[in-house]
Amino acid sequence: MIKAQANVNIALIKYWGKKDEVLFLPYTSSLSLTLDNLYTITSVEKISNHSDIFILDDKLMSQAETIKVSKFIDFFRTDQKRLKITSHNNFPTAAGLASSASGYAALATALNRLYRLNLNKSDLSKLTRLGSGSASRSLFDKFAVWQTGDNETSQAYHLASDLDIEMIIVIIDEKKKSFSSRDMMKKTVEQSRYYQAFVKQSENDFKAIIKAIADLDINLVGQIAERNAFMMHGTMLALDEPFLYLKPESFQVIEFVRELRNSGLVAYLTMDAGPNLKIITDSKNSSLVLEKLSNEFSYQLIHSRPGKGSLIL
Amino acid sequence: MIKAQANVNIALIKYWGKKDEVLFLPYTSSLSLTLDNLYTITSVEKISNHSDIFILDDKLMSQAETIKVSKFIDFFRTDQKRLKITSHNNFPTAAGLASSASGYAALATALNRLYRLNLNKSDLSKLTRLGSGSASRSLFDKFAVWQTGDNETSQAYHLASDLDIEMIIVIIDEKKKSFSSRDMMKKTVEQSRYYQAFVKQSENDFKAIIKAIADLDINLVGQIAERNAFMMHGTMLALDEPFLYLKPESFQVIEFVRELRNSGLVAYLTMDAGPNLKIITDSKNSSLVLEKLSNEFSYQLIHSRPGKGSLIL
Repeated sequence: MIKAQANVNIALIKYWGKKDEVLFLPYTSSLSLTLDNLYTITSVEKISNHSDIFILDDKLMSQAETIKVSKFIDFFRTDQKRLKITSHNNFPTAAGLASSASGYAALATALNRLYRLNLNKSDLSKLTRLGSGSASRSLFDKFAVWQTGDNETSQAYHLASDLDIEMIIVIIDEKKKSFSSRDMMKKTVEQSRYYQAFVKQSENDFKAIIKAIADLDINLVGQIAERNAFMMHGTMLALDEPFLYLKPESFQVIEFVRELRNSGLVAYLTMDAGPNLKIITDSKNSSLVLEKLSNEFSYQLIHSRPGKGSLIL
Repeated sequence: MIKAQANVNIALIKYWGKKDEVLFLPYTSSLSLTLDNLYTITSVEKISNHSDIFILDDKLMSQAETIKVSKFIDFFRTDQKRLKITSHNNFPTAAGLASSASGYAALATALNRLYRLNLNKSDLSKLTRLGSGSASRSLFDKFAVWQTGDNETSQAYHLASDLDIEMIIVIIDEKKKSFSSRDMMKKTVEQSRYYQAFVKQSENDFKAIIKAIADLDINLVGQIAERNAFMMHGTMLALDEPFLYLKPESFQVIEFVRELRNSGLVAYLTMDAGPNLKIITDSKNSSLVLEKLSNEFSYQLIHSRPGKGSLIL
């Protein structure tokens, strides 16, 4: 039995839309922060069964869910044996916290060892991508880039930086999100009148944030990330039926974070395919930001620091 | 003394951005509904004074405000006499309810009579435009179009239609808005990465809604208007510093209106440069929409029907 761990990553420059649905090739390059305290642990073992068995958070998953995972395993499989996959998240599944990213990254890391493929992480990221695009980034420490390209070149890599950065996640709603990011980004590519402009600006944001990270400029990193996130959400206001992942409660927190920033604290926002907020801050500001948030709201707050990439346990 | 009345109009296809700041030429053609029960009444009389006097809602306005109005009057003035302008709104000023539209429309209508210019309403709309773009639409009954063009052709006109349409305004916040629409639309034109796509889609929306109005299709009118409004608000998510006029409370009402619609009622949304919502409905649905809203929220609700254009009292 092989056991692997992968941590959640939060994109500062978003992945939002595929140019190839089969090969999971993104329209834009994305950049993320791997977190230290939100993770999936996945074990795999060969079994004598006619099909794979997939257990997530102690629940046997449906045939449909298992087939999805089996197809992913087929990219790695070197024999006819079926597998039992047992996976645990230490956070609520599908709460907009990218559980599929840490999940597929942990599974890919375990399969790489189980089948003795010895793929380096960049090559592994190309296979990981085929399970969930953003999972390719969870293989790496701290900052990870997943670059756009073709089947051979669209891989992820680690971006080294000493930038002092921390994150506070505000859990507005733990419920499973009603519209999967996979379906919604497809709709966005097909329908949104703002998608082309989003792609164009995202290319600029990507270059600008890499420079800001190199310059150790947390305020500029936060500004670029915040606008990129709002633009991603803005694309969905230009669908046939305008759509928002954010809830009224999300906007209360957004207003409050802006007040914190106006008062001089380092606090920038990013938001993914759900109502939760992620606040970008640093080690000098995080305690005070946490204190102010917990005085104002009763939401669960998760304080994260940069984390390690995936590993065998 | 001449006294004139002009009613508020609410755009279904928004005016959001000038291609000429001096001549008030819009990038896009807009279309509005004039309402029956929200209005400005303005009287003008010649006085022996060295400058104009402007009284709004019983308050003497500042020199800066008065100079703005004096410059507008200069487009009409045929003698050296100064004027006393006395204006009353029957609704809170600057609450996102387009008080400048009804205000400048009432003033232009009064000045046209005072100076015996005998301009027809289309010619008058070209002068009215120079005070406030959307004011050009408040001269007309029910549906008004303000077309883009040059100084000679950018005028407003009445669009005849028997469409059954009503509006319910939800007053989230009566306070004066913190960012004037004039400044914010300028910033949008200058900065928004989504502005070009907004202009392009707005041209399509404009043509489509004119057909839907001709077809008496209230649901299609509502759908087009709702998306156009969300796209306007979406342009501001793509500013250097993303901005939202809507408040968390606005989004609660937005969610509720969508539930009403899913339950089979005719109820579509539009929103302008403030947190208030305007619900597009018809005579068969308005009572039930009002009842449901007043059961759920304590906000002031204003039920409006199509109104008359500006007139001399």
